[in-house]
Amino acid sequence: MNPTACILVIGNEILSGRTQDVNVQYIARRLAELGITLAEVRIIPDRRPVIVDTIVAARAAFDHVFTTGGIGPTHDDITAPCVAEAFGLPWVIHPETFRLLEAHFPQGEFNAARQRMATLPQGAVPIPNPVSSAPGFSIGNVHVLAGVPRIMRAMFEELAPSLRHGTPVASQSWHALGLYEGALAAGLTDIQERFPGLDIGSYPFRRPDGRGGVTLVSKGLDPAQVRAAADAVQALIAQLGCTPIEGEPPP
Amino acid sequence: MNPTACILVIGNEILSGRTQDVNVQYIARRLAELGITLAEVRIIPDRRPVIVDTIVAARAAFDHVFTTGGIGPTHDDITAPCVAEAFGLPWVIHPETFRLLEAHFPQGEFNAARQRMATLPQGAVPIPNPVSSAPGFSIGNVHVLAGVPRIMRAMFEELAPSLRHGTPVASQSWHALGLYEGALAAGLTDIQERFPGLDIGSYPFRRPDGRGGVTLVSKGLDPAQVRAAADAVQALIAQLGCTPIEGEPPP
Repeated sequence: MNPTACILVIGNEILSGRTQDVNVQYIARRLAELGITLAEVRIIPDRRPVIVDTIVAARAAFDHVFTTGGIGPTHDDITAPCVAEAFGLPWVIHPETFRLLEAHFPQGEFNAARQRMATLPQGAVPIPNPVSSAPGFSIGNVHVLAGVPRIMRAMFEELAPSLRHGTPVASQSWHALGLYEGALAAGLTDIQERFPGLDIGSYPFRRPDGRGGVTLVSKGLDPAQVRAAADAVQALIAQLGCTPIEGEPPP
Repeated sequence: MNPTACILVIGNEILSGRTQDVNVQYIARRLAELGITLAEVRIIPDRRPVIVDTIVAARAAFDHVFTTGGIGPTHDDITAPCVAEAFGLPWVIHPETFRLLEAHFPQGEFNAARQRMATLPQGAVPIPNPVSSAPGFSIGNVHVLAGVPRIMRAMFEELAPSLRHGTPVASQSWHALGLYEGALAAGLTDIQERFPGLDIGSYPFRRPDGRGGVTLVSKGLDPAQVRAAADAVQALIAQLGCTPIEGEPPP
């Protein structure tokens, strides 16, 4: 069994619709490559009791918990003290991070707000931030990342080698241009039943020129099974009078 | 108090990173306009027990629950029977929808898979689908929408007039080009403390030309308070030697 993961997106700006989240897709793709099963994502507001309760529940339910957002210097950046509270740990200056940020900022600009970014749950291990210095951190199975996408991605890549991995997900896609899901459904159900250990997914697409079709994705941990299921999908599309097109994205 | 809402995004394709969700942002913006507080979003897989348990929990915890995805004709489209199970209701042919879809498809093409799209929890009220006919539905406080964005949006707009509304969220944004969050943090904390009923949010941005800054958003239900807080934000930016720029998106 691959390890499981949950992403907690912490931020009023996503719940208000102000900001389009793009971090979930990045982390989701990387976890699939690393053989970690993303089982759930929750988007929650910048409210202390909600964040604390959600972290407490998630860290018990999943092997890895990733949070994004809420680790900057302003009053609405409360992820780090909430993680400390969820673990029952004090939230304290991390001396090495303090020195790093003190050296990063010009003389006199490492103010109280910025010193909060050097304040971590006791025992946390910083995740380096090659973009703007202020680190994320891991404590137990909870990994706290920035919300700004390019910083989040850099932190994730710093963290990735140390995560407990599993078997990468194998995936093969065939597109049926001009076919509808309703025509494919019966044949797909048969294929899913023949390969109960795989996920056979069916996703309609529509091109800018107005032509549409369906993408059929076979996914799972056993590459030979995935290939066999994808061969069956290819044959199904051909049998319905359409030329199967392989690969991603849709043609 | 405004009514609360939760969005359940149902779909392996989001959790695998294959697909970038765009439905959350659309619904989030519309709910803010309608005065409905989006309190949580959960992205969950196409797994029956997970979907059922999540719907049971969400419908008890929030005034409105919106689901997206999983209402097509294929084997992985299991939202409707899961909602029926969560309500303890039979999942039965909805005669009016059956007739609608029978008339929509060419003779002989309204097959068993497509008939599933006319099968709803007993007592459900269909949500019209002006794009491709197969409807969503509401049962109790759970509103079941398509996953394909243009169909989801059309269904949402069909549904919106019948939702219990509240007071629309008022919002005013000021941008500080060239300022960092760390310089603004102390002043912002003061403003947040003066306006405890509002959310004062701070969001760094970075333009394609490499110049960055911070957007400061004042949000709440009382437009006069929002204006007063935004005036204080404007003054803070000016006091730090920067010219405040109003509006959305960032300059």
